[in-house]
Amino acid sequence: MIQETEKVDLLIRGGMALTLAEEKEIILNPAIGIKAERILFVEKDDWEGLRQIYAKETIDASGTLIMPGLVNTHTHVPMVAFKGMADDLPLMDWLDRYIFPAEKKYVNREMVYTSARLAVAEMILSGTTTFCDGYFFESAVAEAALECGIRAVPGAGFIDPAFPSPPDLTKQVEIARRFVERWAGRSGLTRPALFCHSPYTCTPETISAVKEVARESGVPFLIHLSETRDEVELTKNLYGMSPVRHLRRLGVLDGNTVAIHAVWVDDEEVEILGDHGVKVSHCPESNMKLASGICPVPKLLERSVTVGLGTDGAASNNDLDMFGEMDKAAKVGKVAGMDPTAVSAKAVLRMATIGGAAVLGMEREIGSLEPGKHADLILVDLKKPHLTPMYNPYSHIVYAASGADVKTAIIAGRVVMADRHLMTLDVEAAMAGVAEIAEAVKKNPSFSRFSP
Amino acid sequence: MIQETEKVDLLIRGGMALTLAEEKEIILNPAIGIKAERILFVEKDDWEGLRQIYAKETIDASGTLIMPGLVNTHTHVPMVAFKGMADDLPLMDWLDRYIFPAEKKYVNREMVYTSARLAVAEMILSGTTTFCDGYFFESAVAEAALECGIRAVPGAGFIDPAFPSPPDLTKQVEIARRFVERWAGRSGLTRPALFCHSPYTCTPETISAVKEVARESGVPFLIHLSETRDEVELTKNLYGMSPVRHLRRLGVLDGNTVAIHAVWVDDEEVEILGDHGVKVSHCPESNMKLASGICPVPKLLERSVTVGLGTDGAASNNDLDMFGEMDKAAKVGKVAGMDPTAVSAKAVLRMATIGGAAVLGMEREIGSLEPGKHADLILVDLKKPHLTPMYNPYSHIVYAASGADVKTAIIAGRVVMADRHLMTLDVEAAMAGVAEIAEAVKKNPSFSRFSP
Repeated sequence: MIQETEKVDLLIRGGMALTLAEEKEIILNPAIGIKAERILFVEKDDWEGLRQIYAKETIDASGTLIMPGLVNTHTHVPMVAFKGMADDLPLMDWLDRYIFPAEKKYVNREMVYTSARLAVAEMILSGTTTFCDGYFFESAVAEAALECGIRAVPGAGFIDPAFPSPPDLTKQVEIARRFVERWAGRSGLTRPALFCHSPYTCTPETISAVKEVARESGVPFLIHLSETRDEVELTKNLYGMSPVRHLRRLGVLDGNTVAIHAVWVDDEEVEILGDHGVKVSHCPESNMKLASGICPVPKLLERSVTVGLGTDGAASNNDLDMFGEMDKAAKVGKVAGMDPTAVSAKAVLRMATIGGAAVLGMEREIGSLEPGKHADLILVDLKKPHLTPMYNPYSHIVYAASGADVKTAIIAGRVVMADRHLMTLDVEAAMAGVAEIAEAVKKNPSFSRFSP
Repeated sequence: MIQETEKVDLLIRGGMALTLAEEKEIILNPAIGIKAERILFVEKDDWEGLRQIYAKETIDASGTLIMPGLVNTHTHVPMVAFKGMADDLPLMDWLDRYIFPAEKKYVNREMVYTSARLAVAEMILSGTTTFCDGYFFESAVAEAALECGIRAVPGAGFIDPAFPSPPDLTKQVEIARRFVERWAGRSGLTRPALFCHSPYTCTPETISAVKEVARESGVPFLIHLSETRDEVELTKNLYGMSPVRHLRRLGVLDGNTVAIHAVWVDDEEVEILGDHGVKVSHCPESNMKLASGICPVPKLLERSVTVGLGTDGAASNNDLDMFGEMDKAAKVGKVAGMDPTAVSAKAVLRMATIGGAAVLGMEREIGSLEPGKHADLILVDLKKPHLTPMYNPYSHIVYAASGADVKTAIIAGRVVMADRHLMTLDVEAAMAGVAEIAEAVKKNPSFSRFSP
């Protein structure tokens, strides 16, 4: 594979690599070569082929842990503008009295774009290199992501406004097709997805029609599924069966469908998800904070269901830090089953990287450090009191590290953050833009629960 | 209170103060004066008395949130040397095969002192200004803390080596008295405590005798209590009753007793704790990671039991970051009771500050920003993408901020961290010292579960 003298764009040497690959899982003193957006080699630093390598740029990774960038499989990034607006409330109050009205009043294309840029800043700063999103004006999210150089799977959102009355299906299908056409193949960084909000806000007609477009074009179909007990009851009342069984009857369960949350799934539904190859996006912080429940991750993994992690929107979290998500996924998984061996650090780190990649159908392209894959990786600074000493890199990352320990982030071979400085966006401007949106919200008496 | 022209050692101006006091809870643009280790005033910046103030040093707090330093009510700081050594294991394997043997082999006075210095670095960097500890060679912890300028409540540890056979009581009492005498009144920064490990490792005789010394000298009596289901069963087998009832019969339950964990307490036991004024140290991360269970915090608070937060030792966490602890306390409390209004951000922030102070019997001295109290406070940098925008300072600190956002830390009026730089200890030396200890552990085949 390596020519006589091979030029690479970027060479990363030193430290320790946690590759998340099946082989060469951990490499002390690695040398990682990146060429034309992709990983060319992942070797030990004493590899003899290294003599033939000429590197345009070299990063000294000593004192760091090099690992794949994190994959956030579910979020609504523009909601960073509403984070902390309403907390510690009953779910329906939170949604009906704060989130939905605020969205109705303040969400527009410009707001989505401005907020998405701030969210991208936060995500890169905390080690996320790919995120899957779903919101209104999703093309504005896609544009913001592309400009800032982060890999994205924007999901165009569908909600039936007059649910349960059926919508204009022709229009829904046209919107879906147009979104997919616009973003498919436009950039290696951006892959479109289609996102039906849920079985209790989308009619069976919309779900089937949108899934059909997703199937034709081979893009992921995302849907909130069995998040709360109330949702399960509601779906049973509407359709005479649980949300998972309802979707099975609609024929939309397959390997390109991502079930987001999957908290209230019984043993038989775990089997159904497994049988159809459905992927699961697990959002522990949101599920805990909204008291929705705890996803049965050990059962899903036992049934070989692919599970990724998601932060959900910042309004129900209240951040986009995948390190916090990993820590909670492990700890809540253990205590929920009263089993300290459940949901191990290694299992969680897989969910946050290669597992998340597989949820998005991208496991052959991202999620591990292997030759041929996109060069999406992060360097975690280990020279910190709370990261000293290190015995086990897996548990260190999951239980001890935080997003603020990520020193350098590289996406598609491009250094997007160096020594905590963002290279692809003006972070002050991003903060100022969203602060301005929030000022308007705060002045509105309907939303100012708290104004010091 | 303020003289004609009053000199203060330190004046902090700007930003927002979250005082955790009953009145003036939140102050925009505050001016906080510190003199001789104590808070002299907490006012608005437009307070007219400010004209009479001459400040030796002024800190510009604009863009920050000023709040009381965090109080960690339970930890074993020297265990930072073992963090990550053994994770994702059944509790008894973890203790019997790794932690206890490693402690037997590697814990000595020097190890405790060296590790405690690293732990203090981590704690100050993440906003903790007071910690309560319990371990072997606890005087070395106290010395390290005092040297580094952090407020500490070191608890001399008692375990009966031949449990359940009774120990030499005269010796136990002498050790307890000597420790209290050594540390009481020696420095305003250090208050001694006495720590009986648990009802299943300490005989009734030791518990009663040590508590008696604590009572005579008015120091806190700490004890792990009802942490696991197994512990409850064991205590029932040994004494015919649950741990809480066992301690009640021994007459050691009172307002100076701190029950650490209190996970497996039934409704009647919540009443018993409440009736006796027993304080509770809640350690959610440790309880989750070891799958011990979830402390019934809402019931304790409803019964007006004083609850503080603790990280527990870093081997079961794996860090000493009280921000992570706050986030988990709220989220696991909500999902455990399936109630999103339970364990609110405000309740949690109280537990981490004034509540923790009250657990240690220090609520009149620390835990809130009020005139006359010790000047223990932190400045949290709000100018960060993940902390923009801010609607509610309580939920912002609990759900969105992390330990790495603490910019400045002041203990007893002394700036111990400025712009993330530690002023009172050599952090490189502290890391090197513990790394060396860990190297020896890693080389030991009994403990090297993982050696990359």
